[in-house]
Amino acid sequence: MQQLTIVKVGGKIVENPDLLAAFLKDFILISGYKILVHGGGRSATALAEKLGIETIMAEGRRITDAEMLKVVTMVYAGLVNKNIVAQLQSNRIDAVGLTGADMNLILSEKRPVKDIDYGYVGDIKKVNALAIIELLKQNYLPVISPLTHDGKGSLLNTNADTIAGEIAKSLAFDYNVRLIYCFEKRGVLLNEDDENSLIPALDFEQYQQYKNEGIIHGGMIPKLDNSFKAIASGVKEVVITQASDLNAGKGTVLQ
Amino acid sequence: MQQLTIVKVGGKIVENPDLLAAFLKDFILISGYKILVHGGGRSATALAEKLGIETIMAEGRRITDAEMLKVVTMVYAGLVNKNIVAQLQSNRIDAVGLTGADMNLILSEKRPVKDIDYGYVGDIKKVNALAIIELLKQNYLPVISPLTHDGKGSLLNTNADTIAGEIAKSLAFDYNVRLIYCFEKRGVLLNEDDENSLIPALDFEQYQQYKNEGIIHGGMIPKLDNSFKAIASGVKEVVITQASDLNAGKGTVLQ
Repeated sequence: MQQLTIVKVGGKIVENPDLLAAFLKDFILISGYKILVHGGGRSATALAEKLGIETIMAEGRRITDAEMLKVVTMVYAGLVNKNIVAQLQSNRIDAVGLTGADMNLILSEKRPVKDIDYGYVGDIKKVNALAIIELLKQNYLPVISPLTHDGKGSLLNTNADTIAGEIAKSLAFDYNVRLIYCFEKRGVLLNEDDENSLIPALDFEQYQQYKNEGIIHGGMIPKLDNSFKAIASGVKEVVITQASDLNAGKGTVLQ
Repeated sequence: MQQLTIVKVGGKIVENPDLLAAFLKDFILISGYKILVHGGGRSATALAEKLGIETIMAEGRRITDAEMLKVVTMVYAGLVNKNIVAQLQSNRIDAVGLTGADMNLILSEKRPVKDIDYGYVGDIKKVNALAIIELLKQNYLPVISPLTHDGKGSLLNTNADTIAGEIAKSLAFDYNVRLIYCFEKRGVLLNEDDENSLIPALDFEQYQQYKNEGIIHGGMIPKLDNSFKAIASGVKEVVITQASDLNAGKGTVLQ
């Protein structure tokens, strides 16, 4: 099977022209098929503020009312996505920027209201793997922004980590899929205040142990739970690393 | 050869949810292959105003400095484009929203500064007809926003009428191309204040005569000059009509 590397990169990198250029320089050196999934939350928050729209987060997720949906659509699918595409094209990489609505790539459903009403936030129902495979075969590099659609005419704001994970799972039987999460730290740390305490490799058993001992906690838990689910679904490797180490073989490798 | 209908629709329609829904209902009834090219200038002006960015027009074209380029990228490629795509998907039409940077569809060059510095405005150099043909063969409906790229990493603001015309010309040898410009009036009028003075059909000779007599003047001249150039390049028919008459067989037919 051919190699496919799916990289998720966050807003901090893609919203800074210099960091983005450096990141893309490393990214395009990865051999084999590639997909880039990006965030853009900081720019969305900044635009919302300029427009007098308050940003409210709940459990790390953005509450997305109708006005905030417009903001994230403009920032994610417009500003961030198209600047990445134009940069890749200038490096002679034939990129195509897409949301989950385009080509019906990612169908989701509006999150049901339980304790919190997240508004126009989507939970993924189905990834259109065939359409992605066809794009890769034609040597396009898909650049995916964190928006999906409900099939009823509405876009839905969807977490970029989750999109990267779901795309990885949907393609695990067609490619040797490697999923790389670019992270603000060097990887999973034994002590989150000590960048030298990197855990270079982690399997599910060790993870459970660290979790039970409280060494791994907080925001890392959903990230790692999702990563190990991806591996259980056939994804060959998940790497959590900082963007500047993309090709350095560093970070935490989950297998 | 198979039929291909390229429709250009302006901001007034696509920015109003009710008008957009009505327009798309008519649009999807057109038989054969279809491409939609949209504007969005009114929303761009409204967003710029909210952000305290002044909109300056010169000869009907938007002066596009770096800040205005961000605004039009957000509005055209994000808000307007993705809402159209989501609406089409809800009608079971497999749309894909693209700028000229995606798939390297439209390469342009920054307009040279003569009397006026238009800023980040692009004049089209090349349309990637092969990529469009491949999308159509796969039954995708391309929805194109009025942005191109310079191949050097910059997006460029590009007139939607011109994009529609250049795409039409580039595909004229592969399809029977019909190009429909949705217009605010019923079509080309003998007397622009009288909607009943519609010219139902116009050929190049008659057009020259009306132009010389001053009957057709102002903003209609570049629109019609470009339309007749498209016909000279093999486009079968250009129709100028109002959006609500899209399928009514009305408007002005240029041949």
